[in-house]
Amino acid sequence: MPALDAPLALSPTSSAGPALAQAPLALSRGAGTTLAEQLAQQLAERIRQRLLAPGARLPSVREAARRQGVSPATVVAAYDQLLAQGLVEARRQRGFFVRGAQGGAGPGAAVPVAGSVAAGGPGAGGSAPLDAAGLIRSMFHGRNDLPAPGLGTLPADWLDLPLLQAAVRKVLAQGDAALSYGHPSGDPRLREALAVKMAECGVRANPAQIVTANGATHALDIIARALLQPGDAVLVDDPGWTVEFARLTQLGMRLLPVPRGLDGPDLAVMATLAREHRPKLYVTVSVLHNPTGNSLSLGAAHQVLKLAEAHDFRVVEDDTYAHLAPAHLPRLTALDGLQRTLYVSGFAKILTPNWRVGYLAAPPALVDRLVDVKMLGGLTTPSLLEQAVAHCLEQGSLRRHAERVVQRLDAARPRAVRLAEAHGCRFVTPPAGLFGWVDTGEDTERLALRLHDAGWLTAPGHLFHATRRASTLMRINFATSQEARFWAAFDGARG
Amino acid sequence: MPALDAPLALSPTSSAGPALAQAPLALSRGAGTTLAEQLAQQLAERIRQRLLAPGARLPSVREAARRQGVSPATVVAAYDQLLAQGLVEARRQRGFFVRGAQGGAGPGAAVPVAGSVAAGGPGAGGSAPLDAAGLIRSMFHGRNDLPAPGLGTLPADWLDLPLLQAAVRKVLAQGDAALSYGHPSGDPRLREALAVKMAECGVRANPAQIVTANGATHALDIIARALLQPGDAVLVDDPGWTVEFARLTQLGMRLLPVPRGLDGPDLAVMATLAREHRPKLYVTVSVLHNPTGNSLSLGAAHQVLKLAEAHDFRVVEDDTYAHLAPAHLPRLTALDGLQRTLYVSGFAKILTPNWRVGYLAAPPALVDRLVDVKMLGGLTTPSLLEQAVAHCLEQGSLRRHAERVVQRLDAARPRAVRLAEAHGCRFVTPPAGLFGWVDTGEDTERLALRLHDAGWLTAPGHLFHATRRASTLMRINFATSQEARFWAAFDGARG
Repeated sequence: MPALDAPLALSPTSSAGPALAQAPLALSRGAGTTLAEQLAQQLAERIRQRLLAPGARLPSVREAARRQGVSPATVVAAYDQLLAQGLVEARRQRGFFVRGAQGGAGPGAAVPVAGSVAAGGPGAGGSAPLDAAGLIRSMFHGRNDLPAPGLGTLPADWLDLPLLQAAVRKVLAQGDAALSYGHPSGDPRLREALAVKMAECGVRANPAQIVTANGATHALDIIARALLQPGDAVLVDDPGWTVEFARLTQLGMRLLPVPRGLDGPDLAVMATLAREHRPKLYVTVSVLHNPTGNSLSLGAAHQVLKLAEAHDFRVVEDDTYAHLAPAHLPRLTALDGLQRTLYVSGFAKILTPNWRVGYLAAPPALVDRLVDVKMLGGLTTPSLLEQAVAHCLEQGSLRRHAERVVQRLDAARPRAVRLAEAHGCRFVTPPAGLFGWVDTGEDTERLALRLHDAGWLTAPGHLFHATRRASTLMRINFATSQEARFWAAFDGARG
Repeated sequence: MPALDAPLALSPTSSAGPALAQAPLALSRGAGTTLAEQLAQQLAERIRQRLLAPGARLPSVREAARRQGVSPATVVAAYDQLLAQGLVEARRQRGFFVRGAQGGAGPGAAVPVAGSVAAGGPGAGGSAPLDAAGLIRSMFHGRNDLPAPGLGTLPADWLDLPLLQAAVRKVLAQGDAALSYGHPSGDPRLREALAVKMAECGVRANPAQIVTANGATHALDIIARALLQPGDAVLVDDPGWTVEFARLTQLGMRLLPVPRGLDGPDLAVMATLAREHRPKLYVTVSVLHNPTGNSLSLGAAHQVLKLAEAHDFRVVEDDTYAHLAPAHLPRLTALDGLQRTLYVSGFAKILTPNWRVGYLAAPPALVDRLVDVKMLGGLTTPSLLEQAVAHCLEQGSLRRHAERVVQRLDAARPRAVRLAEAHGCRFVTPPAGLFGWVDTGEDTERLALRLHDAGWLTAPGHLFHATRRASTLMRINFATSQEARFWAAFDGARG
């Protein structure tokens, strides 16, 4: 069963992916299968997970033999197996290429790497677009036997299954809301509870301003579809979250990456981009930003809102990590009072990523439009899970659980920091929240691939850049970076 | 609580909506509130439900007084109340207008009436676009105290709540799949069960070809986003389902309505449209088509697939009513073997519309692309509800429930037919499945508005046409058209 949220995914470089294809695989002699079989299996897995993209050229037999430390005959036998499985094709005089699985070209056939204006315009990343969505999908195909330092959520053993089960049982016993479509805006009981929850963070919303969604990602999707048109420019944090980049790009938007500093976005860059590109929206994680863990300062929040007003763009505040953060940290939506701003959050990072209960809060004048888009894309959302979340909010069980998680995280973080630093990582931002953002000193795409072959999921830095530029940075999950054996593998995979 | 699936929604005509604004409301003297208050309340409700669209002009005081059979002073008092509530505005020398709730123009501000090539090109319906999404949203704001002949689902008392509860309890007791993201393609256990279910209808799919979604509507949305680009032409059934029209239009597609006959689409029209507009897709309900109840003949299915091949378009078969139909009815996807066709279905019409469990099956080469779009728009789907559906499929409880429902429907249908015919309705297609498609002999938009004021939800014909043209047709739900008092109200609302 998949248990992974974070970017396992390793992209081939925009040329034919030699870095990945050539990285040594973990082959073992005398393992019951031949070296050729092992090599074929591991390459097949990379192809299936799209770590090797369709069209990528495999290294030459001689080169692969040298890299893997095996004989050319072993490589030939492995490539023959891949040919027989239909995973690669031989092109005369040119070598072996990963076969395209797609039946035909189409808009979704290969979601291009997030096109960044800074990098020269939309989709200007290179002649061979990377398959960002494929990378994201592969996040969910992880192995369960090792803790995943690249995980984007709390690990399962930090969650409270009995709490979830009790909430569902309670709702089941309460009646029959399950027999008709839910309310278009989402379950009224949940929206009442959310208004109370948001008020704790200083964000005042009437329940009528709240619209539920199938997770925070869906809420962000609804907003993009309702407020943007293809070709619109959107300001995003850099680094930021790869799914957001990929979705906006897939919808045809132009991304404007704004460097994220310790207390917020680079305001000078933001002002220049706003002037030159007239963005419609700025999408940001204010509090416990992914991947840096930074939070917006009050002063920066004020300046962002002034820029938004001056250049007439809206701001979407993705508060996905709200439950792990002190309530007093400033929210843009609290300052602005949901006039020019929209709020998004959910429960994937605290209750469970499986239930897909998220929500947005918007200025009153936008609510109908957002509900319309929600309905057209999938009608309503399931009352059972929404009421179960409402139950957890109303009873205080969510708050108590969150307090326990924050305490545990506060205890785990220093140990993970010590281990990371002892193994040559430098924290580029002060450790906070769930994620650490570290400089490893070497290309983390290559590093992550080696670790992946050894069973470890990591989150290499290039995934967090809209331009997918090479990076020596890496995101670590403090809850899942506690094991000395990971750091030993990390050392082994280096250099 | 909302319980409605079907089009309550009544659109203002594309001029300023005089038909609706002028239709007599049900006012009663001596009812504890003044006539002015009653008039204001009822107009306010029409405005809130967008039966009167922003920008629509209210009738003149004199005209309204004449229509409603009250004094001009009563109308002035009522309009004053609407002014005070901010629902209308007075424009000098021009009268009273419904205020626009939207804060600014945007792509979703008013989803235009489905643009039809037949009607002169995308969005060519008129200068005042109708708010299709608003109409759809209002479907879910119905009243529960009267059965709704316009309902699009089975009524709640035909569903089996204990079956649903038992399935959820069983899954809860089985373990902890709830603690991590679900599989990107959907719960593996459900996909296994779906493959078996589809095989009963002759549709052979490997579980790896199946992708789950938050309901069939979401599955259709995923397909449109993955396979189409704005501006693409799409063949649709005419009449057909208003949500499909509205969503494709909102995504920027051009609709090509194909008249739906007794045994399938008009093949000559389809061939002409295909030649002239080069559509990418044909979206159709083959079996128990909404709203006509017709099913595709084997011969027509064969011809449709030949046209699809000749003109290189794909076909999406929406099999939403599968559980109410005999398994032997031909499916396009069964003939084609999921080569050029995609299959969509769900459980809203048999288990409950609330759970939002739907799915698609696609040619193997398209699966990755579809999963990518699913993930980018909202990551995964909830395992709890998917496994609960799987449980119902595996245990045979869904099949037994469906058999009971079909028997009950077979018993209810003749009575509804007799009542409808006794009240002047003519069935334009042979009664079958859940819906009857009847000609009332007069404009059903106006009729439906009058019935709505009396508390009855109906489904007027213009909603089922991509062009929203006026219609004397109406869809009735056999399960909820059993009451003599509805038909008495129907008589009262006529002419």
